[in-house]
Amino acid sequence: MDLGDLGELGFIERLRGRLPSGRAVVGPGDDAAVVPVTSGASLTVTTDALVEGVHFRWDWSSPSDVGWKALAVNVSDLAAMGAEPRWAVLALAAPPQTRVDVLDGVYEGLAQACATYGVELVGGDTVRAPLVVVTLTAIGELDGPAMTRNGARPGDVLAVTGPLGASAAGYQSLVDGRTEPRSCIEAHRRPKARVREGVALRRSGVVHAAIDISDGLSSDLHRLAEASGVGALIEPGRIPLAPGVSDPALALWGEDHELLVALPEDALEAAGSPLHAIGRVVEEGVWLGEGVPLGGGPWRHFN
Amino acid sequence: MDLGDLGELGFIERLRGRLPSGRAVVGPGDDAAVVPVTSGASLTVTTDALVEGVHFRWDWSSPSDVGWKALAVNVSDLAAMGAEPRWAVLALAAPPQTRVDVLDGVYEGLAQACATYGVELVGGDTVRAPLVVVTLTAIGELDGPAMTRNGARPGDVLAVTGPLGASAAGYQSLVDGRTEPRSCIEAHRRPKARVREGVALRRSGVVHAAIDISDGLSSDLHRLAEASGVGALIEPGRIPLAPGVSDPALALWGEDHELLVALPEDALEAAGSPLHAIGRVVEEGVWLGEGVPLGGGPWRHFN
Repeated sequence: MDLGDLGELGFIERLRGRLPSGRAVVGPGDDAAVVPVTSGASLTVTTDALVEGVHFRWDWSSPSDVGWKALAVNVSDLAAMGAEPRWAVLALAAPPQTRVDVLDGVYEGLAQACATYGVELVGGDTVRAPLVVVTLTAIGELDGPAMTRNGARPGDVLAVTGPLGASAAGYQSLVDGRTEPRSCIEAHRRPKARVREGVALRRSGVVHAAIDISDGLSSDLHRLAEASGVGALIEPGRIPLAPGVSDPALALWGEDHELLVALPEDALEAAGSPLHAIGRVVEEGVWLGEGVPLGGGPWRHFN
Repeated sequence: MDLGDLGELGFIERLRGRLPSGRAVVGPGDDAAVVPVTSGASLTVTTDALVEGVHFRWDWSSPSDVGWKALAVNVSDLAAMGAEPRWAVLALAAPPQTRVDVLDGVYEGLAQACATYGVELVGGDTVRAPLVVVTLTAIGELDGPAMTRNGARPGDVLAVTGPLGASAAGYQSLVDGRTEPRSCIEAHRRPKARVREGVALRRSGVVHAAIDISDGLSSDLHRLAEASGVGALIEPGRIPLAPGVSDPALALWGEDHELLVALPEDALEAAGSPLHAIGRVVEEGVWLGEGVPLGGGPWRHFN
């Protein structure tokens, strides 16, 4: 059976029974979803698209992996703001001949990620297209000011929520046709979003700037520095490497989805979540050790 | 200059100066947008994707038309709930060789629609893909219970907010290579969302069910009837036809984006917005005049 046999409505019906019911006042199936907002909360919204052949390959990732990743990368953006993820809507573009077990797999992974991160999938759109594009929009709530990218100050410590390099090492293994290290391949296929860490860091009130490492430490460090109008110096020997990562250079790129934060050195203990200090904010330039410029700049999707 | 030359960040920078500033606490450029919610409001969320070659053709629609339509079709879903549209995020997938004037055009149309409907574009994602897919997510606020599809009761009047058939007639003209009627072609390229009407209808408190006519009266009538567990009888002679629509059958399909509502007959005057009664809710079946079954069923995107 394929999507053409089932039709969009048949497919939505099939899904509805499988989605956990949540707080939505009006869920999937109406013109729009209606969700209640905690009084006094502000909202945070993000959207990311995963394109077949660009962001994922069916020979490297299962449909379930793709569904998981679509949610996790969006939730990671919410985590970088220090928000609690709440709701998501999915726009799924797919060829009519897409097998229903592929779609079921995408939704299964999405449902697993929703359960893990406390997100309710409240609506969506399924459309015909020559290839699969999974576009997810996630909405979170904030009970106080968000963490942003633009508040880092010279003298701040730069720190990350966990070890780096696993996703890039996993990607490299897939490129080389290797099946090890499994933990790295898994990190590439099913990234984890640092939601608890993000909320704790925001609530601590000591963080000056935060970003999630979605395109690699090098790119996202440049972004944070540029947004804050400062420079950054990373001490390469202090970057924590994930198990299975033998080449420290892998820590500089890849979608690790750890959070990178800037905060005063004397606030490290008060940050509410364990952090690994890897460097400090300087006046200008982005450096990998004293006097060694760190290139790379922001990841460019189009060139 | 194309998207590959500019890069995603260059493109976002280019856009940022052109977007009107709004209420967002954190707008485009951070991991996620942060927006304030009116105290006591609930939210309504919808997403729709427009795929090149499936939902639009560059020889029929300008880039600006595509941008307009991406927002308008989503806002129309919010209007059907009776919500005030507030915010939107855009995921734009496009080939690297897409000319920048095409992208500028999409954003120009989007900005025009945002200004028309009071929507703030607060964030987005731009990704590489073999073809253009414009996925927009719109968020609205509700200061009371939403209108939904499932409350129609036998005996209710069925009514629409305006004349039908223009979009289908415009589509037919484009298929036939005609340039008239211009108003119909315009209706197809740049549908209007019935936001004011939706809010007024919801606030009147007399509407039992509502849906926007996004796939044609026939399809959306079936949807409303099915969701409400009722039937419907349309009196074909009472369907208001848009100027330029010579064939009444065109009123049964096409993306008119008028609202279709069910409400008690004696409440027509109290509905808060002018309505055209076109039939009534019955126990079962969907009929175009007594004893004539109205086929078509919900529009199927995949078959």
